[in-house]
Amino acid sequence: MQDAAGSEITDKRLLRGAKTRQVVLRRAVDLASLEGLGGLSFGRLATDTGLSKAGIQTLFRTKEALQLATIDAARRLFVDAVIRPAQSKPAGLQRFQALMDNWIDYAETPLFAGGCFWTATLAEFDSIPGPVRDALVADKAEWVTTLAADLQQATATGEVKPLDPALVAFQTDAVLSSANSALRYGDPTALPKLRRSLTTFLT
Amino acid sequence: MQDAAGSEITDKRLLRGAKTRQVVLRRAVDLASLEGLGGLSFGRLATDTGLSKAGIQTLFRTKEALQLATIDAARRLFVDAVIRPAQSKPAGLQRFQALMDNWIDYAETPLFAGGCFWTATLAEFDSIPGPVRDALVADKAEWVTTLAADLQQATATGEVKPLDPALVAFQTDAVLSSANSALRYGDPTALPKLRRSLTTFLT
Repeated sequence: MQDAAGSEITDKRLLRGAKTRQVVLRRAVDLASLEGLGGLSFGRLATDTGLSKAGIQTLFRTKEALQLATIDAARRLFVDAVIRPAQSKPAGLQRFQALMDNWIDYAETPLFAGGCFWTATLAEFDSIPGPVRDALVADKAEWVTTLAADLQQATATGEVKPLDPALVAFQTDAVLSSANSALRYGDPTALPKLRRSLTTFLT
Repeated sequence: MQDAAGSEITDKRLLRGAKTRQVVLRRAVDLASLEGLGGLSFGRLATDTGLSKAGIQTLFRTKEALQLATIDAARRLFVDAVIRPAQSKPAGLQRFQALMDNWIDYAETPLFAGGCFWTATLAEFDSIPGPVRDALVADKAEWVTTLAADLQQATATGEVKPLDPALVAFQTDAVLSSANSALRYGDPTALPKLRRSLTTFLT
């Protein structure tokens, strides 16, 4: 019976650790979107979540590990909100347009308190070499590649004007980021300009 | 003679204050381009410039005043490097292209240690209402308006394809900002994609 009781305690501990991790990271993603990854601290997250600083520190150990876990959490939430729901659409223009609609919801609602996580954090870390920048740059590259794949398909089937998929993916990502910033400071022309830009890029 | 001597002392003090201000702000602009305006502190600037913290604090008084003075200094340097040299070109496509060439030099050289000052700081402050954000947004609006004016002229004279100047100014600013970030993390495709984007926007 001792084994079973021991396992039960371990299971409960693991479950509590996983739950704490989830609560801390959800707050960390919001904070980083508002104030950057540099502003994350165990103390601030403890204050904001009501959990113990020691407990949070035990889970993540270093600030860099916390930053990397926050990027990973943001990435999962972004995939669930923007990418996965578009997968039911046929590859090409329809899926590209679903990605755009989902992205605009993600920035406008917004999913994270400070808007687009990568617009905020890549500007912060683009001059700071290291694992944090590498993770952010990899996420950005994956997103632009995802856009380019659907633009490639849309070009091959003639759904859009002849275009360079990688180039238009770069332009698309650029106007999304700019519109995200403009949404934050309340520029009412941000979304109309974004939508019209997407149209002019494709038609 | 007392008056003359007194004036001389005052003049020297003013001169020393102006010189200190200039040295501190030049460092502040570089620091903010790298680490954001939030990271500016009197202590850090004293360490970096070798000037006394008390002296710097006397000049600027509050962190917000220091941040606003830093934005103003960045703006003056940007105007001198990017805008003013283009004024000798005729309004329209030629001036627009000079602005683009100057801007690419500004981001690539770079003029500020962390690249484009506004890409770094607007992403940092876009969710934080107040005078700092207002100053950054005003600078951004003035830049986009400058671009739109030359695009308007270029459209009116048929130097470029028919286009919406405000819309293409928005797109241009967006790809400049994206390319700035990509330059920071060493993406070799950043400048070619930027230059090709500018061509596709106009022709």
